[in-house]
Amino acid sequence: MELEPVTGLPEVRPGDDIAELVAERVDLEPGDVLTVASTIVSKAEGRLADLEDYPVSGRAQEIADRIEEIAGEEKDPRFAQAVLDESAELLIDVPFLLAETRFGHICPNAGIDRSNVPDHDILLLPRKPSESAERICAGLEERGYEDVPVIVTDTCGRPFRHGQTGVAIGWAGMPASRDWRGEADRDGHELGVTVQSVVDELAAAANLVTGEGAGGVPAVAVRDWEFGDHDGSDELFRAVENDLVREALRDWEFDG
Amino acid sequence: MELEPVTGLPEVRPGDDIAELVAERVDLEPGDVLTVASTIVSKAEGRLADLEDYPVSGRAQEIADRIEEIAGEEKDPRFAQAVLDESAELLIDVPFLLAETRFGHICPNAGIDRSNVPDHDILLLPRKPSESAERICAGLEERGYEDVPVIVTDTCGRPFRHGQTGVAIGWAGMPASRDWRGEADRDGHELGVTVQSVVDELAAAANLVTGEGAGGVPAVAVRDWEFGDHDGSDELFRAVENDLVREALRDWEFDG
Repeated sequence: MELEPVTGLPEVRPGDDIAELVAERVDLEPGDVLTVASTIVSKAEGRLADLEDYPVSGRAQEIADRIEEIAGEEKDPRFAQAVLDESAELLIDVPFLLAETRFGHICPNAGIDRSNVPDHDILLLPRKPSESAERICAGLEERGYEDVPVIVTDTCGRPFRHGQTGVAIGWAGMPASRDWRGEADRDGHELGVTVQSVVDELAAAANLVTGEGAGGVPAVAVRDWEFGDHDGSDELFRAVENDLVREALRDWEFDG
Repeated sequence: MELEPVTGLPEVRPGDDIAELVAERVDLEPGDVLTVASTIVSKAEGRLADLEDYPVSGRAQEIADRIEEIAGEEKDPRFAQAVLDESAELLIDVPFLLAETRFGHICPNAGIDRSNVPDHDILLLPRKPSESAERICAGLEERGYEDVPVIVTDTCGRPFRHGQTGVAIGWAGMPASRDWRGEADRDGHELGVTVQSVVDELAAAANLVTGEGAGGVPAVAVRDWEFGDHDGSDELFRAVENDLVREALRDWEFDG
């Protein structure tokens, strides 16, 4: 497996065609996977906003006040409002906002970014990242790059483990995971591993070569990797009924 | 960045020298990273056991009974005992065992594996995986492979997201993470990303090419990747005081 950063991409602006920008800069073979950072997908889709666009509701003001009171950290209530607007459910509100986005991804601040945002205050995640991935996939196909799955990536932290990793938030042209259930180990026992989230692993791998900030490269071609002869599944976000941690958070309140 | 599976490794047995087995089968350059699956590290370290080795305590019997009663799933109390013996803290007991191992890793069943275990019932994780990584690193150096960091990997599930991914449980010869704090984006703003868990991302990348079960390849050489000119940190597992999810789980009980 080989990962090649797609270098030379310009600053992406609303209306830009990611497939075109990428296709001009890299040769893709059938079976290669293209990962694209959500930041440039969001920019191309015009998901930039300013805090003054968010009139503050009572709920947002209350959250900002509680974060300031309990966590001692100043929080702009307009930012809290933006997070609420992007969220399907808030799992934690104090001392920080952990939200489920409307497309099912759970991350701090509903993934709203305050860095790397030229001329605006904030950058929202793509509205439907798998649809974004499908459009890029189709755009690559129009330019002669057939059979190139696309993964839209983000970076975020996680419970239990320190630091952030690259994760997938949308994908097209391949299943989200390999399903190993029913396959056997060397001794014929059924495997302990059940489902392998390959889109998350590809996003993590890509994040190793993209970098961040000024030197960041927001797209990576993954070559010589095969999904292989396995069952696939298109579930990436845990179903609520299988997520005990989420259930525990619903019942819980931070007390400083 | 390129990932090359180390092929041709034999079934590893207690007392085997992983560094020797790997060094005979792959050429490593300074700066390459070697990932090694915890399964073969555990086997080399003799971390195989049988359920009859675990006399059942009252606590283990109670857990097995409750899992059977509430989750309707038969649980061998001796297996629950093995998990307790390997754990520093149990975060969830019903409907499944989520445990912190004695070295700080949080995962189901304290990482005890029931597949891929020849001639025994279970395979325990290495006792101190970072020390295992250090020994392999030193063994590679003795064989002329200098400056090759080693990561001991496992696969496990996570809250919020479906499926499992490769993660690091021990490492040597490199920091666990890149610390981006203080670095700037293209517009001079401080980056939203703070700490990038590169050992976890390398483990995830490696897991894409190792496979599982009968065709599994338990070691991977990562080439042409650089940690780069960043600060490093050696924290991989979240400090308890920074882990709200863990706090929420402590206060919570499954009620079916």
